[in-house]
Amino acid sequence: MLSIGVDIGGTKIAAGVVDEDGGIIAATTRSTPATDAELIEAGVADAVAELRAEHEVVGVGVGAAGFVSADRRTVRFAANLAWRQRPLADELERLTGLPVVVENDANAAGWAEYRFGAATEAKHMLMVTLGTGLGGAIVLDGQLIRGGDGFAGEVAHMTAVPDGQWCGCGRKGCLEQYTSGTALVRTAKRRAAAGDPAMGPLVQAAGGAKKEIDGPLITRVAHQGDPGAQELIAELGTWLGLGMASISSLLDPEVIVVGGGVAAAGEMLLAPAREAYAANLTARTHRTLAPFVLASMGNRAGIVGAADLAR
Amino acid sequence: MLSIGVDIGGTKIAAGVVDEDGGIIAATTRSTPATDAELIEAGVADAVAELRAEHEVVGVGVGAAGFVSADRRTVRFAANLAWRQRPLADELERLTGLPVVVENDANAAGWAEYRFGAATEAKHMLMVTLGTGLGGAIVLDGQLIRGGDGFAGEVAHMTAVPDGQWCGCGRKGCLEQYTSGTALVRTAKRRAAAGDPAMGPLVQAAGGAKKEIDGPLITRVAHQGDPGAQELIAELGTWLGLGMASISSLLDPEVIVVGGGVAAAGEMLLAPAREAYAANLTARTHRTLAPFVLASMGNRAGIVGAADLAR
Amino acid sequence: MLSIGVDIGGTKIAAGVVDEDGGIIAATTRSTPATDAELIEAGVADAVAELRAEHEVVGVGVGAAGFVSADRRTVRFAANLAWRQRPLADELERLTGLPVVVENDANAAGWAEYRFGAATEAKHMLMVTLGTGLGGAIVLDGQLIRGGDGFAGEVAHMTAVPDGQWCGCGRKGCLEQYTSGTALVRTAKRRAAAGDPAMGPLVQAAGGAKKEIDGPLITRVAHQGDPGAQELIAELGTWLGLGMASISSLLDPEVIVVGGGVAAAGEMLLAPAREAYAANLTARTHRTLAPFVLASMGNRAGIVGAADLAR
Amino acid sequence: MLSIGVDIGGTKIAAGVVDEDGGIIAATTRSTPATDAELIEAGVADAVAELRAEHEVVGVGVGAAGFVSADRRTVRFAANLAWRQRPLADELERLTGLPVVVENDANAAGWAEYRFGAATEAKHMLMVTLGTGLGGAIVLDGQLIRGGDGFAGEVAHMTAVPDGQWCGCGRKGCLEQYTSGTALVRTAKRRAAAGDPAMGPLVQAAGGAKKEIDGPLITRVAHQGDPGAQELIAELGTWLGLGMASISSLLDPEVIVVGGGVAAAGEMLLAPAREAYAANLTARTHRTLAPFVLASMGNRAGIVGAADLAR
Repeated sequence: MLSIGVDIGGTKIAAGVVDEDGGIIAATTRSTPATDAELIEAGVADAVAELRAEHEVVGVGVGAAGFVSADRRTVRFAANLAWRQRPLADELERLTGLPVVVENDANAAGWAEYRFGAATEAKHMLMVTLGTGLGGAIVLDGQLIRGGDGFAGEVAHMTAVPDGQWCGCGRKGCLEQYTSGTALVRTAKRRAAAGDPAMGPLVQAAGGAKKEIDGPLITRVAHQGDPGAQELIAELGTWLGLGMASISSLLDPEVIVVGGGVAAAGEMLLAPAREAYAANLTARTHRTLAPFVLASMGNRAGIVGAADLAR
Repeated sequence: MLSIGVDIGGTKIAAGVVDEDGGIIAATTRSTPATDAELIEAGVADAVAELRAEHEVVGVGVGAAGFVSADRRTVRFAANLAWRQRPLADELERLTGLPVVVENDANAAGWAEYRFGAATEAKHMLMVTLGTGLGGAIVLDGQLIRGGDGFAGEVAHMTAVPDGQWCGCGRKGCLEQYTSGTALVRTAKRRAAAGDPAMGPLVQAAGGAKKEIDGPLITRVAHQGDPGAQELIAELGTWLGLGMASISSLLDPEVIVVGGGVAAAGEMLLAPAREAYAANLTARTHRTLAPFVLASMGNRAGIVGAADLAR
Repeated sequence: MLSIGVDIGGTKIAAGVVDEDGGIIAATTRSTPATDAELIEAGVADAVAELRAEHEVVGVGVGAAGFVSADRRTVRFAANLAWRQRPLADELERLTGLPVVVENDANAAGWAEYRFGAATEAKHMLMVTLGTGLGGAIVLDGQLIRGGDGFAGEVAHMTAVPDGQWCGCGRKGCLEQYTSGTALVRTAKRRAAAGDPAMGPLVQAAGGAKKEIDGPLITRVAHQGDPGAQELIAELGTWLGLGMASISSLLDPEVIVVGGGVAAAGEMLLAPAREAYAANLTARTHRTLAPFVLASMGNRAGIVGAADLAR
Repeated sequence: MLSIGVDIGGTKIAAGVVDEDGGIIAATTRSTPATDAELIEAGVADAVAELRAEHEVVGVGVGAAGFVSADRRTVRFAANLAWRQRPLADELERLTGLPVVVENDANAAGWAEYRFGAATEAKHMLMVTLGTGLGGAIVLDGQLIRGGDGFAGEVAHMTAVPDGQWCGCGRKGCLEQYTSGTALVRTAKRRAAAGDPAMGPLVQAAGGAKKEIDGPLITRVAHQGDPGAQELIAELGTWLGLGMASISSLLDPEVIVVGGGVAAAGEMLLAPAREAYAANLTARTHRTLAPFVLASMGNRAGIVGAADLAR
């Protein structure tokens, strides 16, 4: 039984035909016309049409970067795309004639890791995605958790530090401001601007241009052994561990999957995360410590998860 | 279909026969011999025998203040009772001949509110109990959340303040240190000891004995209109709202039920909680704000919830 | 005995002849060519020449927004003017033939309040200036405190919140990020952008343009009775009181003078500051609580203080 | 010109004749009858009488653990001794017939380090004493800073963490709760009680008795190379550096002297303190970083400083 998964990102619509083992057996892409909802939907429909010409599919799952209603039909709000209370599933069903479900993109990726990736052994999973921002997905007892409005999994905006750093969301101290790609780069740039000598090698690697420092550069310089860059990543890991400890107090997952671009730092990120997690988890001697593992599905997770949720 | 619910507290074993509407149609109690696991179990069995002599029941549910295994059979650890990895369900099944399930007491109470009390309209519920400590129970999509080890719902030990106040659990900044009966009384006593004039009426109400200040006294003086006592309760409420906002970011519940002795403060607690909740919840203009409501089952919640979980 | 005081700001050089009672008996201004150190100095010399043509003066005091060396001769660094290790006193003595001392502008203003303004009764004074940023000046036992490098009084960069908000200085949690005009406006804008209903009247007063909200607008709307604007100012005051309590633990001043544009909020700022101060000061029942008073010298403080320090 | 210094501690009155180079040329002790002010004074007078029988002295300086009035005559309040608004200088002048000045004990010790010990090269000095609590003394431009009430130098009660750990003073987050002997031991005990494996060697060194862990034990085990004990001391050092950075923003001292029992940890304490200090000091590239040095006067500091202040 095949289904189609679609991952709608800020610049690209990626779609694929997914089998029951999570394999992508055909794929295509379209560019994303971000400011026009109807054009996005037409692009999705076009990609679906191309794929189903060759494969018999039972439905379409769409992963979208936005707040999706709990019934998986409406995008209530998206920061970077032209959707406000958009009945995306209805529109796509009309255009494709296939049953459609919509899912938050982090949820779709988390579901893929749960079903086919790093967390197949677990029933209770937490996934966090450290990209530009901080995404989250929760699976408990084999169920993806969506909450009353469909807004569950917003790890990014748990309060890590009362009266802490301002967040783009209008509040202070959100966890995303302490552990995400944005947090990593900002800390590096601010310390560099303040003349912190530990940032010297990083500035040098950026050709002297402090403003050119970005996440991949930090990760590369850290892999080359620079203590300053490693410290930046370790600080991110420590905050990650702290945040996950609070979540584990609440949900007690069996495994914590870490994905996103920052996860390329591997153990430089995970080792301090595990340490801070163990140090900040209550009753540590009476419980099983959830392991921190890297996501294994990579970029495919969005397509595969969305497709699987459509079955 | 009737079942028996048992609530094992630090001083008393309370048991009752519960019908399918959550009514207690017969009840009995025994004292709790806290330091002897076998005597506790004998007491429970004795109470069960008394109740089933008059009523036909299908099983027994036991609520216990401790960490209960996810399969609901073993008490892994209890702070105040003589259990360490105690196979409580096995023991009680042997003694009673009835099917037995064991549940954490806060979970049992939360389940009762979900099924028969303040949250019957919701599918997704968070309950917090502000007693001496801070208890929590989570119901998502109609399922009580237990997690991998059965430790889910430990709201008390989420980190509210990095490097904050020491908690009895060996860590700093746990939410329980900011919103619980213990936090309320400690703040009052410390401010009184430091000569804070706002604590004057409270000290006077305690007959001048600063060390005699306790939770019911603070609530009483607050209800009489004393601004100092009201401020203490409002501070608790503000922290409660902050903590619940973090949890709602993660789980997006439809309703937040507040129980426990401190809830007797009513709106003096809930109003500032709602305000801090709204101010600290991300995307507030795009979502439904979960209402804060008082628990409605009172002391019966433990018995009723445990019994219902045994059906 | 007359002396000349000069206040070098980002757009204007203001100079005056000051008598021994702190009165300005003649004044003149020049525009500030901010990017050329020599032109600034020529402008100062020109203003001095104009003033001394009519008045016999014993010396010149210059207040400058920057880090000034402890010997009061060199500007080590200025954020907004073209000085790096500039021997300003030497240059001006060469150009004017008069003895010259240079002082940090906040220090000059603080000295004026101590000598002729709001703190004439005290020997030990702390002054804070809430303008765009947060300035400070300390007088202990009648002596202006400069420290080893001349950098004393940097109230702005004391750490108020560990891991708090990023500061332009490259560090997190500086007090200036919590109590200053910049902090006031940023909080208002972020809460407005996040759709906080309490910001509604403020947004309306800004003609619907959230980005147009500024400090004078907030103060005006607060004076008109809007609770949202008043809350913003009160929050600033609470942080001010907290910060001053830490400083009083260290220095035990007799009076705290509050100046700068934000001080136009008056009691809406000072009342919550006093409350937070008293609540956060150790041994409050054994000590005199330093009063919070408004600065009384206004814009003249920089000229008068600099002139007096030159005598 | 000789003078007598007296150090009144909780269990012992130590007195000595001090020469102009800070040398103690004769010494004696009495036990401290802590609960009777008159007996303490009689003990001091008796010790003074013994010493002046052999040496001609010009006055007596007394260091006392308490809040001393700015005129150096009255002990306003002492936590551990029987003084409340006690005119100690008057009483001792009556008993001895010599001029007497009273000084806070941390101030006396700081003055000794400034005059004869680790800070003789500086004009601006900050001294912190990490004993059971956290003491402080400030010398600016060669003057000991006392403030309006004589309460200056209370480093202990600056707020390090808003809503942080409760302090005995009735407030939350005081620096003393993060860097002092008490903080060191408490952290060790709490982590040990929570089963933290890093505390294992320390518990073993205490013979398995977690409650027997004390400061000297931690320092000893750290000197033997145990990473857990070293981490505890380093954490203390990090907080020390953070706190000192705030103070340097305000006062810009040339040197920071660290004394008290915890200073026996030496570089294990100072190295992380220096690192946190540099990382948290604003404008670090434009200023001289004050060195952290160990106090050099040891237990003599109290007697020597008090005696010198009496000249």
